[in-house]
Amino acid sequence: MDRVIRIGMLGCGTVGGGVATILAREADDITARTGAKLEITRVAVRDLARDRGLDLPASVFTSDPLEVVDGEDIDVVVEVMGGRAPASDLLRRALAQGKPVVTANKELVAHEGPELYDAARSAGVDLAYEAAVAGAIPIIKPMKESLAGDRVSRVVGILNGTTNYILTRMSEEGADYAEVLADAQALGYAEADPTADVGGHDAAAKCAILASLAFDTAVHADDVFTQGIETVNATDIRVADRLGYVIKLLGIASEVDGRVGVRVHPTFLPKEHPLASVRGSFNAIYVEAEAAGELMFYGRGAGAEPTGSAVVGDIIDVARNLLQTARGAAESQHRPKDLRSIDELRTQYYVLLDVEDQAGVLAEVARAFGDNGVSIAQVWQEGTRSSAQLVLITHRAREAALRATVDSLAAVDSIRSVASVLRVEAEVFSS
Amino acid sequence: MDRVIRIGMLGCGTVGGGVATILAREADDITARTGAKLEITRVAVRDLARDRGLDLPASVFTSDPLEVVDGEDIDVVVEVMGGRAPASDLLRRALAQGKPVVTANKELVAHEGPELYDAARSAGVDLAYEAAVAGAIPIIKPMKESLAGDRVSRVVGILNGTTNYILTRMSEEGADYAEVLADAQALGYAEADPTADVGGHDAAAKCAILASLAFDTAVHADDVFTQGIETVNATDIRVADRLGYVIKLLGIASEVDGRVGVRVHPTFLPKEHPLASVRGSFNAIYVEAEAAGELMFYGRGAGAEPTGSAVVGDIIDVARNLLQTARGAAESQHRPKDLRSIDELRTQYYVLLDVEDQAGVLAEVARAFGDNGVSIAQVWQEGTRSSAQLVLITHRAREAALRATVDSLAAVDSIRSVASVLRVEAEVFSS
Repeated sequence: MDRVIRIGMLGCGTVGGGVATILAREADDITARTGAKLEITRVAVRDLARDRGLDLPASVFTSDPLEVVDGEDIDVVVEVMGGRAPASDLLRRALAQGKPVVTANKELVAHEGPELYDAARSAGVDLAYEAAVAGAIPIIKPMKESLAGDRVSRVVGILNGTTNYILTRMSEEGADYAEVLADAQALGYAEADPTADVGGHDAAAKCAILASLAFDTAVHADDVFTQGIETVNATDIRVADRLGYVIKLLGIASEVDGRVGVRVHPTFLPKEHPLASVRGSFNAIYVEAEAAGELMFYGRGAGAEPTGSAVVGDIIDVARNLLQTARGAAESQHRPKDLRSIDELRTQYYVLLDVEDQAGVLAEVARAFGDNGVSIAQVWQEGTRSSAQLVLITHRAREAALRATVDSLAAVDSIRSVASVLRVEAEVFSS
Repeated sequence: MDRVIRIGMLGCGTVGGGVATILAREADDITARTGAKLEITRVAVRDLARDRGLDLPASVFTSDPLEVVDGEDIDVVVEVMGGRAPASDLLRRALAQGKPVVTANKELVAHEGPELYDAARSAGVDLAYEAAVAGAIPIIKPMKESLAGDRVSRVVGILNGTTNYILTRMSEEGADYAEVLADAQALGYAEADPTADVGGHDAAAKCAILASLAFDTAVHADDVFTQGIETVNATDIRVADRLGYVIKLLGIASEVDGRVGVRVHPTFLPKEHPLASVRGSFNAIYVEAEAAGELMFYGRGAGAEPTGSAVVGDIIDVARNLLQTARGAAESQHRPKDLRSIDELRTQYYVLLDVEDQAGVLAEVARAFGDNGVSIAQVWQEGTRSSAQLVLITHRAREAALRATVDSLAAVDSIRSVASVLRVEAEVFSS
């Protein structure tokens, strides 16, 4: 067991620190399990002066990432710098030189994953990105390997811890969105600019990665219909609860007749669904496969050590392959597939209207739905005289018809505003 | 892509049928993902005359399992016959001849897994057994590979679908054990002789396998403290519900200071715990690891296609390795570790007593607890005059002290019987 696998790391922030900590703490077991010592030989960072509190000699640090990518003494490149540039060029350069790559870079993989994967395939080396989706949760590897003989039809995920934390507190405390967001920011669970999280963009990136893998195609982050949680209010949460639902920000990817639909939006989810009990900042991914049936994978989606654990698992995989001059399980060739537009979606909807409290408003509302062919399953009035609200739950309808209905409603005088429109996944997930 | 990997199957019952069905249905994708065609070349069965309704030529069937094990035209041996003999000898013989083995045999792996694994290691071939625990759920591979750089401290599983189905219905319908069991038998969810399931033995076997893997040691099925659900009654369920718990049959394995404890018993589990919402015949495994934190894996624990899916995933893994003359991730060497006795457990307990409704009984009960150093957290009376019951929840106490308390209680005249004793896992799992 004299063999050493030399790791070059790009970046050394939160996740990089977690990787270094785990590699040092579990060194003996990792050596036993890998059949080689894993050693961090070089780390490229922007700020050489910063003390990272890690047990790494100063001599491994460099400010030149090419010393990692081009270094002849580097066996594996581990990218934990994040962002598309310069990570994209650096990883392509590493792959082209026959260096296997482990990355935790969600943004990069969501936009360029299939292309990067093709580059790895051409070079005959491994590209592993378990940490790019849902932190510590093993999901890339189970989908690629354990389900290699199965056919995935749907992937539904709670992919963003910040929004799940906010929605959980809103739901359990009846609190307002703005209040919980401010609290989450104070506690460090949400960023000062929370847009990437609350706008659903972070979840959309992860959902694109999962859809690409599940359906052997190239889904990019920009292909994902994305709606955030910024407008979810306490009434929405209360109505959902009363009807037996919780509101969750879900990423939903499915393939129907060879066409792939990918969407992220707040959703009425039945309380009995396994994803409904995923609370706080946890993530979970629910998978439907033809033979395996329903599966769910649950755990921490972020954090230095949880994400570091996934990176280290990938490094060990890649190292084992290097030692045997083998390669890990390949992804299927990415085949071009049509994407389904959100307009084609057929599901139930929840609509909340701020209305004038007057006779006739219900008739006008009903006409707007009827004119657009959207059938109402339930309707009732909420609120006080001075701020009356109408709550409507529709039968299954096309998204395009629902959107036309909302346009009609906006033109009705006695409706002050369309306060909320949310999709309801009742018995089964819609396509 | 002309290469063919030739599969020899031992047994062709429910799981074997699932394997054959999936291999045929997904043949094209499997070939693309594996880089070789997977072909069932020979199947050893007891009854050659039986029509299995599978798309396999009659010529592949044989009644001689040695034609599979010794066959020079067999690349991978897939064992789906179940039971310890003759599977044990057959698999050892296959491994000794350098044939990789995929097995779904829980009983065999639970009793001889570490020894079989050592045989595979000596022969330099793969031994894969994903399907032996929790059917379709990827858990062996994530623990062995994704968590290879992490340190697992605890594994808690709902590992038996039959008992979880029974407990779910008792809990949701307030039904009696006997009634639900009879129903489950009529529906085919429980066997005519349900002992292996309701007695906890099936769960204990799976828990032994998980403990061996999690803690790099050899835990055998017989090492597992095992208590079944046969005596769980409607009062237990109702009390648990009122106190914020559900009763689940849990397999709990943990390592503390290098000593391993493994136990299976019905448990009061807080409703907020992710395992509490695992309903019906589903299985789930909750893992605590130092870096990754809490993880949970959920899915179908049985059935032809779910279990078949796991077997096929393993076959593809093994086939990929064969094509590269590589081996899959090895398990760590199994190190001998001390086992903790159940007597050392410190947890809370729920005790249900059938008592005479008379003054003084509470004092006698309190004395029995006090004499044995077990402190009572809550106590109240249930039932009617003619059939009064005392419910007690203890503070954390040693199992040995609780057992002594129960012995003392049995000697009290005004106590008709100790109806139930169940362990309560309140905030955290106990060790």
